[in-house]
Amino acid sequence: MNSFGRIFRLTIFGESHGEYVGVVIDGCPAGLSIGKDLFMEDLKRRQGGAEGTTSRKESDIPLLKSGIFNGKTTGAPILILFENRDVRPGDYSEFRRLPRPGQADFTAYRKFGGFNDYRGGGNFSGRLTAGLVAAGVVAKALIAPVEVKARLMEAGGSDNVVAAVREAVEEGDSVGGLVECRVTGLPVGMGEPFFDSVESLVSHMIFSIPGVKAIEFGAGFVSAGMRGSSYNDGILNLDGTTATNNAGGVNGGITNGNEVCFRVAARPTATITKSQRTVDLETGKAAQLSARGRHDACIALRMPVIVEAATAVVFADLMLLEQERGRVV
Amino acid sequence: MNSFGRIFRLTIFGESHGEYVGVVIDGCPAGLSIGKDLFMEDLKRRQGGAEGTTSRKESDIPLLKSGIFNGKTTGAPILILFENRDVRPGDYSEFRRLPRPGQADFTAYRKFGGFNDYRGGGNFSGRLTAGLVAAGVVAKALIAPVEVKARLMEAGGSDNVVAAVREAVEEGDSVGGLVECRVTGLPVGMGEPFFDSVESLVSHMIFSIPGVKAIEFGAGFVSAGMRGSSYNDGILNLDGTTATNNAGGVNGGITNGNEVCFRVAARPTATITKSQRTVDLETGKAAQLSARGRHDACIALRMPVIVEAATAVVFADLMLLEQERGRVV
Amino acid sequence: MNSFGRIFRLTIFGESHGEYVGVVIDGCPAGLSIGKDLFMEDLKRRQGGAEGTTSRKESDIPLLKSGIFNGKTTGAPILILFENRDVRPGDYSEFRRLPRPGQADFTAYRKFGGFNDYRGGGNFSGRLTAGLVAAGVVAKALIAPVEVKARLMEAGGSDNVVAAVREAVEEGDSVGGLVECRVTGLPVGMGEPFFDSVESLVSHMIFSIPGVKAIEFGAGFVSAGMRGSSYNDGILNLDGTTATNNAGGVNGGITNGNEVCFRVAARPTATITKSQRTVDLETGKAAQLSARGRHDACIALRMPVIVEAATAVVFADLMLLEQERGRVV
Amino acid sequence: MNSFGRIFRLTIFGESHGEYVGVVIDGCPAGLSIGKDLFMEDLKRRQGGAEGTTSRKESDIPLLKSGIFNGKTTGAPILILFENRDVRPGDYSEFRRLPRPGQADFTAYRKFGGFNDYRGGGNFSGRLTAGLVAAGVVAKALIAPVEVKARLMEAGGSDNVVAAVREAVEEGDSVGGLVECRVTGLPVGMGEPFFDSVESLVSHMIFSIPGVKAIEFGAGFVSAGMRGSSYNDGILNLDGTTATNNAGGVNGGITNGNEVCFRVAARPTATITKSQRTVDLETGKAAQLSARGRHDACIALRMPVIVEAATAVVFADLMLLEQERGRVV
Repeated sequence: MNSFGRIFRLTIFGESHGEYVGVVIDGCPAGLSIGKDLFMEDLKRRQGGAEGTTSRKESDIPLLKSGIFNGKTTGAPILILFENRDVRPGDYSEFRRLPRPGQADFTAYRKFGGFNDYRGGGNFSGRLTAGLVAAGVVAKALIAPVEVKARLMEAGGSDNVVAAVREAVEEGDSVGGLVECRVTGLPVGMGEPFFDSVESLVSHMIFSIPGVKAIEFGAGFVSAGMRGSSYNDGILNLDGTTATNNAGGVNGGITNGNEVCFRVAARPTATITKSQRTVDLETGKAAQLSARGRHDACIALRMPVIVEAATAVVFADLMLLEQERGRVV
Repeated sequence: MNSFGRIFRLTIFGESHGEYVGVVIDGCPAGLSIGKDLFMEDLKRRQGGAEGTTSRKESDIPLLKSGIFNGKTTGAPILILFENRDVRPGDYSEFRRLPRPGQADFTAYRKFGGFNDYRGGGNFSGRLTAGLVAAGVVAKALIAPVEVKARLMEAGGSDNVVAAVREAVEEGDSVGGLVECRVTGLPVGMGEPFFDSVESLVSHMIFSIPGVKAIEFGAGFVSAGMRGSSYNDGILNLDGTTATNNAGGVNGGITNGNEVCFRVAARPTATITKSQRTVDLETGKAAQLSARGRHDACIALRMPVIVEAATAVVFADLMLLEQERGRVV
Repeated sequence: MNSFGRIFRLTIFGESHGEYVGVVIDGCPAGLSIGKDLFMEDLKRRQGGAEGTTSRKESDIPLLKSGIFNGKTTGAPILILFENRDVRPGDYSEFRRLPRPGQADFTAYRKFGGFNDYRGGGNFSGRLTAGLVAAGVVAKALIAPVEVKARLMEAGGSDNVVAAVREAVEEGDSVGGLVECRVTGLPVGMGEPFFDSVESLVSHMIFSIPGVKAIEFGAGFVSAGMRGSSYNDGILNLDGTTATNNAGGVNGGITNGNEVCFRVAARPTATITKSQRTVDLETGKAAQLSARGRHDACIALRMPVIVEAATAVVFADLMLLEQERGRVV
Repeated sequence: MNSFGRIFRLTIFGESHGEYVGVVIDGCPAGLSIGKDLFMEDLKRRQGGAEGTTSRKESDIPLLKSGIFNGKTTGAPILILFENRDVRPGDYSEFRRLPRPGQADFTAYRKFGGFNDYRGGGNFSGRLTAGLVAAGVVAKALIAPVEVKARLMEAGGSDNVVAAVREAVEEGDSVGGLVECRVTGLPVGMGEPFFDSVESLVSHMIFSIPGVKAIEFGAGFVSAGMRGSSYNDGILNLDGTTATNNAGGVNGGITNGNEVCFRVAARPTATITKSQRTVDLETGKAAQLSARGRHDACIALRMPVIVEAATAVVFADLMLLEQERGRVV
């Protein structure tokens, strides 16, 4: 539910307009150097600030509250908190009654019998990803020199991301986006099929990110239309280097020593000022909603670092697991 | 690794050319009517027999060995075995030395230090999905009247599946395919975010199926290019019925009462008779491989029922979990 | 590792002399009334204050930081923090070099390569049980009207607990103790054998409590010397009421409708001022240690409420799990 | 429920009078030599045959059906089956209506709504331990040269086990017993507190064994009456060797390099021919039961090898987990 991982294991908590969001990281080996500075770059990338990102301003200073001593991990659980300071719960009271189309307002209301914290999306807010990014920083340090790099390829179907977002903002609308992620330096052998293939675990984590609706590895959907003679990646040497990389670095659910590569689609931000059809939860009657509140016009803008974090967490776990699964002690 | 599920939990085992493949299903409630007949339709769909499917002939009779008494589940683990009868291990000895591009031959060899059973793909064979389909039959019975229906939309990029496969077979080649799955009758509220969203769990299971390289829910990759005003599904009434279904029936990781819909891409079958580049694992030298052995020319042909099974298993687990997660006992 | 439970799931974190100890509770149903007042009685019982308990003074005010809204659980993870205020890390620097016999000093040092936070026992401190007791309070609210009651039966082998502890304190020594726990109001059917029997889960949790070395259910060790004709509890009616309760309310790992009853042995507090043999971790030479620092002379004094919490957490999880495991939806 | 372990993970299945009992072992590293002969000694010890053990005769030949190739583990799940041949289901029909005191008849009937397989105790039969013993054999091979040795210390309160059992048999009665287990050769550092201490995991597994009602480590219940100055085990050197072993080889839930030692109490066999009080499940009226059927008069006679298996499985899992948990890769 709110935990993920077999050895390197996260537990996420918090609400958009509560006091904190954060994460507990269990299973991190002792002796890893972790200082506050390590987090700054990734957390800054998550924050946005660019046109089309939310006007909510949070300092996002990671508060390292346990599991770190003298600048190194101790082997005990690592608690990282982020304060919510720029909170305006009043902005969101309307959604209590008029659920936003495309958001979790309606489903959360129904699933939790109306007891959910609806302010700012509550536990469903993108703000929860601060904890995920922090965990990703620890995971990246653990799996180094393996590198995980994601970037936004397009927004609203256009390579000109800035223009696409600006145009949407001006119209009180939002746009989706496409993120690509590449993992380099992985050894052969990561992944635990039948059920815990690399693709299974990566997709599990990636779909945890609010707004993700699709993922494809290597040639992905294009492979459905290919012939085997074009798709299959010829093996060039004993390291497993392949001539092409249609498989996205994974065969049989296990890394093959080539770059792991995948693409992720983010739907447009649900909250828009344009008028939308919804239902009044009190009266049951049809209603129109023009959403206020601070929000991104394109959640994909801030998504690359979150995709990296989700991916790094998976490979941290797989790496700890692989140490001895593959051969006799 | 080889288990999946929190309450309704599968464990898969077996090898292509061992004595059995099968599954243990734990956590199935007592009192569910399960007879051999129940399995026949789905197992027959998995078997293929159409042009372009393997010439290997297995009767695929499910041997129900525990957990069922007087035709009903007992609440104890259900063991289902399938005998491997039409076994020709000799066909595959070549791949021991010359790993097939696009297959798990190389990665399994390296991960398991050469100890893996390489015959017919061993534990990585598509034959393992017999156990998954059997578990899917039990799951479908459990979640009824919820229905899970998948079908092959195209192969090799063509709606004319028969022609596309035939052409590939004639050229000693293979093709990929596209499968669509729809789940109807689901209540609002299935799914356990942050990490166990419907999309996370479904994709986790779907990527366990050998050959899957992509998945998208609802508008999927198209949503990356959409505006929020087009993408958002207007809510029509208190049941959560929406005017469109771009979200694929899931908001915030939780079912919204509409049809859950997703598409899956299967890469072409890796084993082809056309010559391919590979490496000789003994000498380290470049080599060419023209694969023999019995195999499908299009694994997607047999995939719809496997996709259904994977999906039904996820919703069986979510349904058992949801009974009391959402509200006080 | 630092998490326990299948549905109602705890994650414990913190160190004795860090900033916080606490717990995340995942899987708690929404709508449960939880106020700060609810915690006070149990937390006070854990604090001690009686003769023979530590002189460390902590207010132990539970800081409810997420998962609760308008006084009720939301269904999202509940974060509860306790500040560490009365911290004197200097007291413990000696143990860094001279591990206390009977404590985790040596094993933690070796397991975590010297990176563990050694101050006050760090992550191995009894202070971690504050989070456990807080989780127990939530669990008790969830399983009501089921009641869990534990009490200290004897200390140092004597029914006169006060005298036994005083005598030990005066001699710079410590004593062990015996705690009995009874759970009333349980329905028939809790417990998930083969591996998750009531005894398995309760003992798993109880042995998590620092200092516990033994547990017995019902007649326990005495049953090893009994005849079946004396041991077996005659069944009196369809409710399962038995004439005796040698089984401690559990048959085949499943509650039988009678009181669940077990006893727990706590070893003496490890930290004593009397001189003990140890080894100098820097020189490898034999050494003598007379431990300073604030500590209990009898950890069993504060243990009943911790035993209750551990037990309540197990039954909360089993109850959520049982809702639908036993019969078809 | 029917699975245990984080990496080295068992799933148990089968019924006393079904076709098979057995186990799936997941997570066993590849390359471990496993032949049928390896199992014979331990399985023979489980079988009994001595006076006071059941007259049911099963050959207990382990059928290794997957996960082993050319005499070595492959890294894939290992399926081991045992055929049930000497089946007389008619013997047990009476218990369907008149539940045996001290057995799971009543609780299983109620938990599973009457759908459980009641023949010979069904899924609650001691016969299920055949799979556990087989898993123990694999675990012992994995953790070698660590040795796990258990033996029966007394039965019915007497050191003269043979006489005590004979006397009980003659009177149509049964007796309990006491088993001691010692684990030698363990390194310092096994165990994963807070929740997965050595004692937590060992007790979890041990209480899975049908009939166990108590466990104590080291000085156990005696420690409750001791002073710290007597209890604490003085540390003699950097290896952690202690002068005494009251802690049973575990401090803070982690092995300290000394022998791990614990004792287990088994209640008397529930099924006896002496008349006992029970209830008629059909009429609800009080009834008397003189149980027929084949059964042990002292389940403890066959328990040492089962205790060893349960223990070996725990340490196999902890050893795989420890490889990298303790320090940075």
